Amino acid sequence: MSSLLFLSRTGLSAGGLLLRNGGGRYTVVSPELYSLCHKSSTKFSVRCLTGATGEHTRGSSYGRRALLAAGAAVIAGVVASFSHFQKAEMKSATPQSKANENDVLEKCRTFMSPPVTDVGTLQKNKDDIKSKMELLIMETQADVCRALAEVDGSSFKVDRWQRKEGGGGISCVLQDGRVFEKAGVNVSVVSGFLSEEAAQQMKSRGKPLKGKDGKLPFCAMGVSSVIHPKNPHIPTIHFNYRYFEIEEEDGTKQWWFGGGTDLTPTYLDNADAAHFHKTLKDACDQHNPKLYPDFKKWCDNYFFIKHRGERRGIGGIFFDDLESPSKAEVFEFVKSCAKAVVPCYIPIVKKHLNDSFTSEEKHWQQLRRGRYVEFNLIYDRGTKFGLATSGSRIESILMSLPLTARWEYMHEPHKGTKEAEILDILRNPKDWV
Amino acid sequence: MSSLLFLSRTGLSAGGLLLRNGGGRYTVVSPELYSLCHKSSTKFSVRCLTGATGEHTRGSSYGRRALLAAGAAVIAGVVASFSHFQKAEMKSATPQSKANENDVLEKCRTFMSPPVTDVGTLQKNKDDIKSKMELLIMETQADVCRALAEVDGSSFKVDRWQRKEGGGGISCVLQDGRVFEKAGVNVSVVSGFLSEEAAQQMKSRGKPLKGKDGKLPFCAMGVSSVIHPKNPHIPTIHFNYRYFEIEEEDGTKQWWFGGGTDLTPTYLDNADAAHFHKTLKDACDQHNPKLYPDFKKWCDNYFFIKHRGERRGIGGIFFDDLESPSKAEVFEFVKSCAKAVVPCYIPIVKKHLNDSFTSEEKHWQQLRRGRYVEFNLIYDRGTKFGLATSGSRIESILMSLPLTARWEYMHEPHKGTKEAEILDILRNPKDWV
Repeated sequence: MSSLLFLSRTGLSAGGLLLRNGGGRYTVVSPELYSLCHKSSTKFSVRCLTGATGEHTRGSSYGRRALLAAGAAVIAGVVASFSHFQKAEMKSATPQSKANENDVLEKCRTFMSPPVTDVGTLQKNKDDIKSKMELLIMETQADVCRALAEVDGSSFKVDRWQRKEGGGGISCVLQDGRVFEKAGVNVSVVSGFLSEEAAQQMKSRGKPLKGKDGKLPFCAMGVSSVIHPKNPHIPTIHFNYRYFEIEEEDGTKQWWFGGGTDLTPTYLDNADAAHFHKTLKDACDQHNPKLYPDFKKWCDNYFFIKHRGERRGIGGIFFDDLESPSKAEVFEFVKSCAKAVVPCYIPIVKKHLNDSFTSEEKHWQQLRRGRYVEFNLIYDRGTKFGLATSGSRIESILMSLPLTARWEYMHEPHKGTKEAEILDILRNPKDWV
Repeated sequence: MSSLLFLSRTGLSAGGLLLRNGGGRYTVVSPELYSLCHKSSTKFSVRCLTGATGEHTRGSSYGRRALLAAGAAVIAGVVASFSHFQKAEMKSATPQSKANENDVLEKCRTFMSPPVTDVGTLQKNKDDIKSKMELLIMETQADVCRALAEVDGSSFKVDRWQRKEGGGGISCVLQDGRVFEKAGVNVSVVSGFLSEEAAQQMKSRGKPLKGKDGKLPFCAMGVSSVIHPKNPHIPTIHFNYRYFEIEEEDGTKQWWFGGGTDLTPTYLDNADAAHFHKTLKDACDQHNPKLYPDFKKWCDNYFFIKHRGERRGIGGIFFDDLESPSKAEVFEFVKSCAKAVVPCYIPIVKKHLNDSFTSEEKHWQQLRRGRYVEFNLIYDRGTKFGLATSGSRIESILMSLPLTARWEYMHEPHKGTKEAEILDILRNPKDWV
């Protein structure tokens, strides 16, 4: 139970947990979300949909099957909800996607897989923040996968799970590609019931939560990703955006958002760092000029490898428990952040795509990969919680680990080298914009 | 404080922690031992004594300096204490070493470094189990390093630390050798004071421990090691042997031993597994036929990677809180186990020294190395505790990690392969003798 305490201030790993509930369907949920359903689950079943590309899967039998499953529901849906987010749209949105954004069904066709929730249900509850958030995380997954697949020339493997109670997950992985060593983008959407004790531990901010017969309905969803490139001059990126909701006995809903995007370069490139942070700052500044400075600092604090006295990377933004000023405004902020992932990262990837590198540079990258493993296995709360929980889908949780890593006894770069330069930044984070 | 709870049932990692206590001297202690001194320490200083070989250091300036430092003390010492251990001596002991075992000074000349405790003090307290154990762990370190260095053709780097309160540590590392990817053998000896609460948490077996003014003097020491070879046909070995002692207000001493030796092959070799377990069983059986079966089972349970449903390796023996039938008898048992390390492992190393291997076999080894990292960073109590404690000497703790490791999404060996064969054993441990 005490591990639930981590949930209110956690970084979502690129992981997922799978729950079974006695019936025939399953769900993969991210480690944090899994906590909410910790009572279920011992086994899991995986349906692998390989060959799905970064392009949408409309033409595949899987795509057809899924959309048929959505029924012939007239999807004209989330018009109102999406139109007022245009302000927050980042440059990654194409005119084509903008023209279609009013059409839930059309939108779903561009996803890596059908949404976890039935498309008809999403349409019916179009004004619910849960529907908006699910479409956002699915769209983020598709946008990121498409952009990465285009750069790499390889396709993503798409794994999908479902769970009887409702909810499910979709993991997209590109491994050992031309550009990317390992790229994983996970989506999970799960709902069920929490005990009062578990709910309280998860959201320990004041008055006790009162459930009906001691149980509180909840819903939780998120997108999470880690991208490890091969070339040591292309940095690793991690991002996740998530939403939680708990309903009390009297119908009061407690809700909050969390998320972040951070960069882990092997070598420092000041222009890359500035571009990355500036793009995130711009996304934040559209909503409140205080957000970026606060969440930049939170990010530096969270991704701290305490036993090394170093940050995992050069930071970015990180936040949790975000519940003000209003649900709609926080969602808009989260949408801006999610939309900023492609423009903050892909230009950096393209810039260094053909950079030559030495075996010494690859060697230093491998040592830094070792530190990435240390952070994820020792400190990342989502990973720790997921691994400690029975029934978790390990492959989705540990998707965040690099393909290869290295540890040397007493390794310390020589002064004045490029290795010492990045290490100094990791030990003494600086402001980039 | 709660983390101290781990200590009474812990596997000592190949790690060490460094304490500073305001003065000029330092100590490196293994993670478990460090808990005993958790109040001190923020900084550390390392004195690296490179170039020490697997041979003893008598001829080096370091060796001369150290032995001079021991003073001209007449060391004729631990005669009585050593003579009655002859029964437990394993075949690794040479006639030469037997002839000299009565001579503490002569014995010390064969160590990788002078003992942590002053040689004169060891001689003076020759009947104390602490002196006997320190000589045993120093001898074990030297025996193992010598045997490995001989096989590899490379020398160990020897790092030594001291601590003002008394005590210290010696880390020996051979990295990227001809045979060994990474071989680390640590010794630590530390003493100080525990709070009643900390002591209670560490040794939660019954009545509260009562200290003088709330403080309990303690002493703790151990040898720990992880050896990762390059050739995938040579298995990784881990061992550690440790002793704890706490003194109560009325002078009553609580004491116990812990330890174990376990093997992690990349591929199953039934003859190797049988030899390894048989050697350990023989060491145990000299003392009590019940020990091996009990400690073999304990080992399988401890080295369990829960989230994978696999053991880290094919086991061996593991025990903790061992305090009966008597201090002398348990010491004899521990000595037999420590003396069994070289004969249980080195013949396996030599047998496979020139085995050819394919890139596919190296690839599988790298995936298994990834699992080793997972166990050590996620489950090993000593490592976890050490990393979570400020002032720890990280390089000694993480010396146990392999030089290189690999993680692939959804990797599963094909049925009927050699990879599937070892995985089956890791999932379903069997009896080897």
